[in-house]
Amino acid sequence: MSFPDYSGYKEIKVRLDDGVLVVTIDRAKKYNTFASSVAKEIKNVFDLADRDDRVRVVIFTAEHTAPAYCSGADISGGWDGLFKEDEEDTELAHRDTGGQISISIYNCRKITIAAVNGHAAGVGITALQLPFDLRFVWAGAKQTLPFIRRGIAPEAGSTYLLPRLIGYSRANSLLLTGGTYFPNSHLLQSLYHEILPTREEVFPKALALAKELAVHASPKSVRYTKGLLQHGGSSIEETHLLDSRAIRILAASPDAAEGAKSFFERRPPRFEGKVSKDSWYPWWMSVDVKYRKSKL
Amino acid sequence: MSFPDYSGYKEIKVRLDDGVLVVTIDRAKKYNTFASSVAKEIKNVFDLADRDDRVRVVIFTAEHTAPAYCSGADISGGWDGLFKEDEEDTELAHRDTGGQISISIYNCRKITIAAVNGHAAGVGITALQLPFDLRFVWAGAKQTLPFIRRGIAPEAGSTYLLPRLIGYSRANSLLLTGGTYFPNSHLLQSLYHEILPTREEVFPKALALAKELAVHASPKSVRYTKGLLQHGGSSIEETHLLDSRAIRILAASPDAAEGAKSFFERRPPRFEGKVSKDSWYPWWMSVDVKYRKSKL
Amino acid sequence: MSFPDYSGYKEIKVRLDDGVLVVTIDRAKKYNTFASSVAKEIKNVFDLADRDDRVRVVIFTAEHTAPAYCSGADISGGWDGLFKEDEEDTELAHRDTGGQISISIYNCRKITIAAVNGHAAGVGITALQLPFDLRFVWAGAKQTLPFIRRGIAPEAGSTYLLPRLIGYSRANSLLLTGGTYFPNSHLLQSLYHEILPTREEVFPKALALAKELAVHASPKSVRYTKGLLQHGGSSIEETHLLDSRAIRILAASPDAAEGAKSFFERRPPRFEGKVSKDSWYPWWMSVDVKYRKSKL
Repeated sequence: MSFPDYSGYKEIKVRLDDGVLVVTIDRAKKYNTFASSVAKEIKNVFDLADRDDRVRVVIFTAEHTAPAYCSGADISGGWDGLFKEDEEDTELAHRDTGGQISISIYNCRKITIAAVNGHAAGVGITALQLPFDLRFVWAGAKQTLPFIRRGIAPEAGSTYLLPRLIGYSRANSLLLTGGTYFPNSHLLQSLYHEILPTREEVFPKALALAKELAVHASPKSVRYTKGLLQHGGSSIEETHLLDSRAIRILAASPDAAEGAKSFFERRPPRFEGKVSKDSWYPWWMSVDVKYRKSKL
Repeated sequence: MSFPDYSGYKEIKVRLDDGVLVVTIDRAKKYNTFASSVAKEIKNVFDLADRDDRVRVVIFTAEHTAPAYCSGADISGGWDGLFKEDEEDTELAHRDTGGQISISIYNCRKITIAAVNGHAAGVGITALQLPFDLRFVWAGAKQTLPFIRRGIAPEAGSTYLLPRLIGYSRANSLLLTGGTYFPNSHLLQSLYHEILPTREEVFPKALALAKELAVHASPKSVRYTKGLLQHGGSSIEETHLLDSRAIRILAASPDAAEGAKSFFERRPPRFEGKVSKDSWYPWWMSVDVKYRKSKL
Repeated sequence: MSFPDYSGYKEIKVRLDDGVLVVTIDRAKKYNTFASSVAKEIKNVFDLADRDDRVRVVIFTAEHTAPAYCSGADISGGWDGLFKEDEEDTELAHRDTGGQISISIYNCRKITIAAVNGHAAGVGITALQLPFDLRFVWAGAKQTLPFIRRGIAPEAGSTYLLPRLIGYSRANSLLLTGGTYFPNSHLLQSLYHEILPTREEVFPKALALAKELAVHASPKSVRYTKGLLQHGGSSIEETHLLDSRAIRILAASPDAAEGAKSFFERRPPRFEGKVSKDSWYPWWMSVDVKYRKSKL
């Protein structure tokens, strides 16, 4: 098997550092706005990271000197620019670009971390924060979900992700005021794994945890845990049937033996990195969101 | 089209103020208790507000000099008083009055705000706080959900709404202790958009936000956002299909153009107020909760 | 009807105190680790408590002088020890022991309280904290869900229970870092009803609330409330149909009359203790998780 070298991107910079793939948005001159060119590259890199056995954790971040982490969609040309590709067929063909990368990040089987070291608006939250497993943030980063103030709708799966992450009380407050809040606001606080006082601290803190997890977390455990969290049962009984099977399979695997052994020997574990196919995983049906064209 | 003038109510006072419909419960002498006469009027006003294009935000509140915001159901005549109407048919005919207004408020397509400027018990929380989009509260307002201490069950859809708003850990604590808590209690805090130190401040704060949103929030965006939050998909993929279509429709609407234009011109937007029918909205099936009589 | 005397357990101590069943894990010498012998006894005691009309509240706790509340599964013999019984048939036969007691506690129709007066790891959280209605905890109790660091999967229904209790943002943080946190950490705080400064205070505080609820909470109301929270509708309308019927049935019961009467007379209520069968309760289908053997 050959591995991707993660070069050739124009809107992002990508490097692999001890099992941690660091993805940095590189559009500081354009306020790190979101455009379809950015979306394509981000989707591509998460799709690769998902299958690259060298990658155990992915961090997404921006330059801490940039004017923003991501200041939302680039609407300098109006909203129409976002839909060009779809006009070949019907308006049903549209697949929101933010949502496409949300799905790619959400479905990535590695641990994903957003290091939010600057202001964020719209898709800079919905697609570039919500689908991640963990979020680190600068306390001074202004956050806004202004959809109702622009005459549009919250996108990128945000009405699915946000209430699940922090509950409907706060999700309603954020989406139905469209206001600007700091991470320490009681409305936003629980969205973040850690809130840091300066922009400079955000990425190093995220990287330190990422490197620790790249060694100490079993990749196989990670994808089963994410699978159970995302595709668990609809009752405690159904979840019991799923997690019983998961733990039965994992407990018989080399990673579990190494997990117990290294624990008793008080040393870092050496977990197998391969995310090979099991007979059982994934146990859920994946949903196809592709548009089926109506015309030849 | 003619508009309702919101007069003729006996238990509530209603006035329209710059796009904000202010509904005030007017039973201070009876501790603002809840009775079927109150329920009918509240249900009626939210059903009208939902379809009145002049109304962009609805606030529900009480006089801040009243002994309570709402001290629960009026059970001075025992529980039987609540069920009279149903006895014509079987006991299956009963439709909890609190639940009827919860549904009416929850389904209202405008932004809804509860300004809780006094103590609240039972239905004063379940129907008169939980179904609203946002809740402002006085820090000194005692809140209690005493159902298990009265030998009855939590009603008004509260076992659906409360855990979704604040999570099961706190919902269980509130409902299974039946205790009395202040809004700053860690059990209640996340239920509120804002907690104010005095009773007098609650309504003006809510009104200020309401008036701001009456101008700055697109009514069409609001109902799509509420629709996505209440009737979104059961997976990120399904939600992606729904929000892609929503954003495609909205981005082509005059409100989106005005939203972008007013943003770049740094001026308040002028959004169209009409909540006209789209071909697609609502995309969900509405559930009919009416009882079908068994006898002629 | 004869009642169980709760004697004869080896791994737990059980006593009935004014309607409160106190269950204490009694393996301090083995760090209160979890083994199949412990699981069987805990499952048995909750199954009995569920049907014993004398029991109105169940508290689970440990000696506050023990090295831990529960330090997780006993894996001193490796993971294999956990699966012996299943090997007679296929690996599909496995039913996680933690999950079996989670379900037993979660389905118990009495109020259940965990008094966490020591450190807890793995199953000491997933099965011995999450399925309870309320959790009291010592502020100094270290809590860790280390599954990904041991090469296994989170069990005992934890991927169902934890996100529902505290939201996915914090559940993801806890399960995907596998870190050690104190109860006052913003990640854990909302899991607890009350956090106490010393180990000694945890059980007495829990017992005081339990005794108060044993008198003031109607057993019938408790099981309807738990039923609505666990098996409510999938929409506000469906929940309205369920809670309308629940409140109609309860309001006609002696407990509701006594609840109103004692409230107006400002005295403790005398609620009927019997959890007899109603024609309607339970209204949901119970899920059978038993393995159906493939061989004779």
